[in-house]
Amino acid sequence: MGPVAKTGRILSGMRPTGRMHLGNYVGALENWVRLQNEGWRNYHMVADWHMLTTGYEDTSRLQDDIYDMVLDWLGAGLDPEKSVIFIQSEVKEHAELHLLLSMLVSKARLERIPTLKEQIRDLNLDEQTISYGHLGYSVLQAADILLYKPTHVPVGDDQVPHVELTRELARRFNFVYCQDRPPVFVEPEAALTAFARLRGLDGNRMSKSVGNTILLTDTPEEIVRKVRQAYTDPKKARATDPGRPEADLTELDAEGRPVHPGCVVYEYHRKFNPEGAADIAARCRAGTLPCVPDKKDLGQRLSDALAPIRERRERYAADPDRVRDIVAEGNRRAREVAAATLAEVREAMRLKVPWLEGR
Amino acid sequence: MGPVAKTGRILSGMRPTGRMHLGNYVGALENWVRLQNEGWRNYHMVADWHMLTTGYEDTSRLQDDIYDMVLDWLGAGLDPEKSVIFIQSEVKEHAELHLLLSMLVSKARLERIPTLKEQIRDLNLDEQTISYGHLGYSVLQAADILLYKPTHVPVGDDQVPHVELTRELARRFNFVYCQDRPPVFVEPEAALTAFARLRGLDGNRMSKSVGNTILLTDTPEEIVRKVRQAYTDPKKARATDPGRPEADLTELDAEGRPVHPGCVVYEYHRKFNPEGAADIAARCRAGTLPCVPDKKDLGQRLSDALAPIRERRERYAADPDRVRDIVAEGNRRAREVAAATLAEVREAMRLKVPWLEGR
Repeated sequence: MGPVAKTGRILSGMRPTGRMHLGNYVGALENWVRLQNEGWRNYHMVADWHMLTTGYEDTSRLQDDIYDMVLDWLGAGLDPEKSVIFIQSEVKEHAELHLLLSMLVSKARLERIPTLKEQIRDLNLDEQTISYGHLGYSVLQAADILLYKPTHVPVGDDQVPHVELTRELARRFNFVYCQDRPPVFVEPEAALTAFARLRGLDGNRMSKSVGNTILLTDTPEEIVRKVRQAYTDPKKARATDPGRPEADLTELDAEGRPVHPGCVVYEYHRKFNPEGAADIAARCRAGTLPCVPDKKDLGQRLSDALAPIRERRERYAADPDRVRDIVAEGNRRAREVAAATLAEVREAMRLKVPWLEGR
Repeated sequence: MGPVAKTGRILSGMRPTGRMHLGNYVGALENWVRLQNEGWRNYHMVADWHMLTTGYEDTSRLQDDIYDMVLDWLGAGLDPEKSVIFIQSEVKEHAELHLLLSMLVSKARLERIPTLKEQIRDLNLDEQTISYGHLGYSVLQAADILLYKPTHVPVGDDQVPHVELTRELARRFNFVYCQDRPPVFVEPEAALTAFARLRGLDGNRMSKSVGNTILLTDTPEEIVRKVRQAYTDPKKARATDPGRPEADLTELDAEGRPVHPGCVVYEYHRKFNPEGAADIAARCRAGTLPCVPDKKDLGQRLSDALAPIRERRERYAADPDRVRDIVAEGNRRAREVAAATLAEVREAMRLKVPWLEGR
């Protein structure tokens, strides 16, 4: 007998940013689908309330973005028979647990969360003008997670501080309110996504607003065209020049980062063509692999890899009633779990009004 | 024709601190009942979630305190046929609107609220260790209010900054989300309670934890006994000495406050014996009114004033099923209003998922 596969329950969500790109797939969706198919019980949340923490003013695209994202999740292989797909704002228990947990964490603890500090820097915000809700988004995330009592939370390494806060809040709650009863919350473990983040086609951080992404819905032609413009090695001017697939650590910029952070095409090969990547790197270094055919090859591979996703997505897109049923049923199943947890929470906190029972 | 009485809708609540004292009555309940009987539509909330902002750890008395407070409200004359009495945590919309409004207010704005600063000082808290929920309790209060679209909020003067924040949030919401539709929120006005705060029997701030209060449930004997020990004028050593009913502004302590801040018995006379108070003060000053009969007189007056409250309360206490029905019905009516407001909020914020309609 081989080793018994370890499975449990996972909760993972995403802000509804609309159509998903390759980074969303590699960094999350692929992992969700793998776990689902290994027998884990998956809960996947469309984190629409979280969208408000950094952009509450313009919500005009929100509903289209939710729908597009759900289609991409289904296209990527989330199976509604196995995984629960739901919308955060349709499960009111998230707001209630968020409020209750907000009493258990200090303002100062939240101000110290590194992801918040990074966001403030990245979005050019002033620490004084961030909203109250933005300061507390990791408390909302803790509520999102704890309601489903997952054993694991699949996250990128940047999200580990949030899982740490979630664990702290679970411990704190159990300590304060469960002295005379079994603990209500499970402390979930962070499960790091196996593959490191993919950069955008221009070599910078992947982001739809920059326009350096491949979308799961891109046609084969679009994919090939986009890859053709990808960042490779600026020093490889002619087809027969030797190239540098990896970062060149001998030449650093003022901030100590490599001027050439590595060829994006090679990075994508390592992910989507793992067997061939070493050979490609060797030929590139030797000057025997020009960029044009190499990019054509990668474009074809990406297109092939995304074909089943694209096709599955199209089948769902053609059947909006089915999509609606899936999400409505997901909301129902999520509510069932969330309501049961919250009943325990209220009981432990003595917030249940005994003399109103059943009214 | 006389002037038309101005009426509207009010929302006012209290933290469930258990049995109510004379300060609660004079500072709030009496006013609520007066407005109710003038034809206002009253919503009165048991603010149980607010209890957690400053004391989340020990909730063992919470449910008894809620029940006792509701009995006292009914005893004081809130008429369930006219006023809606409900429990905050039974109306989940408060948590949801709190979360949504938390995106519209900056952390810095909340840190500046004077009542929070005072609480931090009074409770000997460290500004850094206050909880996230405590920092945001005025946002929860704004949600409590706005859900019911009251025209007025009866408050003591210390609560005016909260009504101001509530008005700001209403304006901000209407500005951001209602450009193309009628405004969702009404900006409520603060309605200051007519009578100034009563001091405790010892001359200090009235507080059950200090034990200087008269409870609405005290028996006539207890009332008379408590008044007998009330603070009068320490310089009036003998019955025929002249007394100082009012504060003596000629002698100040190190902080510039009068060493003799006035006789509590006289203060209570002004409230409960307004016609007789001037004469009492004159005789006290002349040394012709000894404290003993004066206190006996006040004790009797208080006992008489509280008798109908005590009796009404006893009738309700003898019929717990009726109390339960009143609160269950109040919760139902509050939920109806709150849910309707929140539907408008979600629609305006485009958080309503149109393709899930009716699922």
